[in-house]
Amino acid sequence: MATREKNIFAELRGEHIDAVVLTNASEPNVDLSFFYATGIVNGIFERCFAIIRPRGVEVISSDLEALSAEQAGLKTTVFRTGKDREGLLRRKLRGCSRIGVNANEVTHANYKFIKMCAGGSRLVDVSNAISKARMIKDREEVALISRACRIVSRAAETIPDVVEEDMKETEAAAELNYMMMKLGASGPAFATNASFGSTTAEPHYVPSSRRLKRGQLALFDFGASYRRYVSDLTRTFVCGRPDRRQREMYETVLEAQLAAIDEIRAGVHGRDVDHAAREVVDSSKFKGKFIHSTGHGLGLSVHDPGAISPNVDMVLREGMVLTVEPGIYVKGFGGVRIEDDVLITRTGCRILTSAPKEFLTI
Amino acid sequence: MATREKNIFAELRGEHIDAVVLTNASEPNVDLSFFYATGIVNGIFERCFAIIRPRGVEVISSDLEALSAEQAGLKTTVFRTGKDREGLLRRKLRGCSRIGVNANEVTHANYKFIKMCAGGSRLVDVSNAISKARMIKDREEVALISRACRIVSRAAETIPDVVEEDMKETEAAAELNYMMMKLGASGPAFATNASFGSTTAEPHYVPSSRRLKRGQLALFDFGASYRRYVSDLTRTFVCGRPDRRQREMYETVLEAQLAAIDEIRAGVHGRDVDHAAREVVDSSKFKGKFIHSTGHGLGLSVHDPGAISPNVDMVLREGMVLTVEPGIYVKGFGGVRIEDDVLITRTGCRILTSAPKEFLTI
Repeated sequence: MATREKNIFAELRGEHIDAVVLTNASEPNVDLSFFYATGIVNGIFERCFAIIRPRGVEVISSDLEALSAEQAGLKTTVFRTGKDREGLLRRKLRGCSRIGVNANEVTHANYKFIKMCAGGSRLVDVSNAISKARMIKDREEVALISRACRIVSRAAETIPDVVEEDMKETEAAAELNYMMMKLGASGPAFATNASFGSTTAEPHYVPSSRRLKRGQLALFDFGASYRRYVSDLTRTFVCGRPDRRQREMYETVLEAQLAAIDEIRAGVHGRDVDHAAREVVDSSKFKGKFIHSTGHGLGLSVHDPGAISPNVDMVLREGMVLTVEPGIYVKGFGGVRIEDDVLITRTGCRILTSAPKEFLTI
Repeated sequence: MATREKNIFAELRGEHIDAVVLTNASEPNVDLSFFYATGIVNGIFERCFAIIRPRGVEVISSDLEALSAEQAGLKTTVFRTGKDREGLLRRKLRGCSRIGVNANEVTHANYKFIKMCAGGSRLVDVSNAISKARMIKDREEVALISRACRIVSRAAETIPDVVEEDMKETEAAAELNYMMMKLGASGPAFATNASFGSTTAEPHYVPSSRRLKRGQLALFDFGASYRRYVSDLTRTFVCGRPDRRQREMYETVLEAQLAAIDEIRAGVHGRDVDHAAREVVDSSKFKGKFIHSTGHGLGLSVHDPGAISPNVDMVLREGMVLTVEPGIYVKGFGGVRIEDDVLITRTGCRILTSAPKEFLTI
């Protein structure tokens, strides 16, 4: 991971930062940038520190995770007690006059702990630099994300065969997770959303024992995790014959998604890509029913830095990986969303997910 | 969830807190206490706020999650833009002189945002009070955790039938996740750890394409998530006949676990429970090979507040749910861990997980 620290410090030119300190609280409050900078695949590293300097990364690890850190080939110092831990951090930060912290991903309590150990040194919020570094994926990251995308795509292709009328949402989610893991995923990237009928109108729904009935929309939003990197894909189906409203919703969303993808290339504003999708929805009878942004960054996290949003000022750059996922949500009736993951290129994008996008029947 | 705010404010007596503000950054940096206080089952609620007052909870929600919040029966105000969001929080905090924040689970950036919106009000770290409230599970929480424990136990019972020689770690993990979801889990509680051979010595290992060979230890550490609440169970097997060292490791760990469970009841120090387990390991030939604490809290998070640890000063109280999981780890050879989840009672504990604990063969 020797280039990762260079990527971070390249964004910090002129800031005179001596070292950046990253740390994890208890799960789920871990700093994924810790894993970006260290390249560590196994472990959670609660209460551990990564100290990033322009010329290398070292880890202060608990006993529990020491083996995982060493296997990643990192210089590792191990603590056993809280006193050890504090003493080690103080020693490593000695002589630094400006220390970077990642305010977006460190808890306030850990920020205060670092401040205490930093003595008189100045803490500087470097979360923007870290986000910028993480937004541009390196070759290894692209390979891992592509693998996660291939896995989720293969799993999505099985939906019309595997999901059937009267199946529970949790059962359908079970089938998809199983398929992804048989294909090599280390797990689902997030709680697989399989929703049937009116619950398809809740974008972040968690599956329940609701059963699929004829005539209902069935929405699947899921992703694979592969060596910490993730994919994120959504496809919407109908059980039996779609009615006119369902068909109109689907066609509008698909048109919006294709319009957005068409707009994408390095140098374009995310806002303009969002506009391309939103314009399609808002000039249809479903005006105002597209209630979220068109896309978000993807990498170590399902919501990685970066967004294709009306409210975010971001220019697309080569090497970014983003989702493209317009949707239409009609309360009490249902929702349609179509989501793919794309790698931004100089002239357009490479679509990393590949399941069919026709309006298919279960 | 009407009693949750009372539980929190009961721990804040004399602190004169007008309101507690909880908020979520991007996944995974969400504050699970947001879901404790609100009882919301669906949604991620990134960038949303829960405002907890002694007499009730209200939510400031993005468009995206508004439906999930309303369905939980909560007073909900919706924002569309960042400016809306800031204005709403400012308005809701007006007139408060002391505002509680959860420093253990809020990011430093969000802490600064709340501070800005709080005007001249004083922010007070109330994370201890929140942890204490969350440590004692109410009846509804115990029911959900028990359900998650039943699911993982049933899945664990299938291991000797489902896992076989030459199977990949990821395939075994796939089978366990599938079984849990077929049994009603909304997903795995964390990345299911199936490790074979020497990787069993890494407590937080992530499964890879390694295949199970005759003579190897096979360790499974996994849990179910059920309506946001989780279970956490570990069982260790051997493929074929165990050798003497494996048998000694297993017997020592089992004896240590039973010694710890025997010690547990309300009023006992966690440190003493840890000591009971550690003494068994440290008086065996595996002295010093038990490299983590005996247990941790369990609830919304796999690592909930509370620990059975030599380094944590905590008295067990009725209603706590904790793991009991001693282990022995021999680098290059393998590890054994046996983990159950227990509910502390006045006179002892109720063991919520129920898979067999004999040294079984795959």
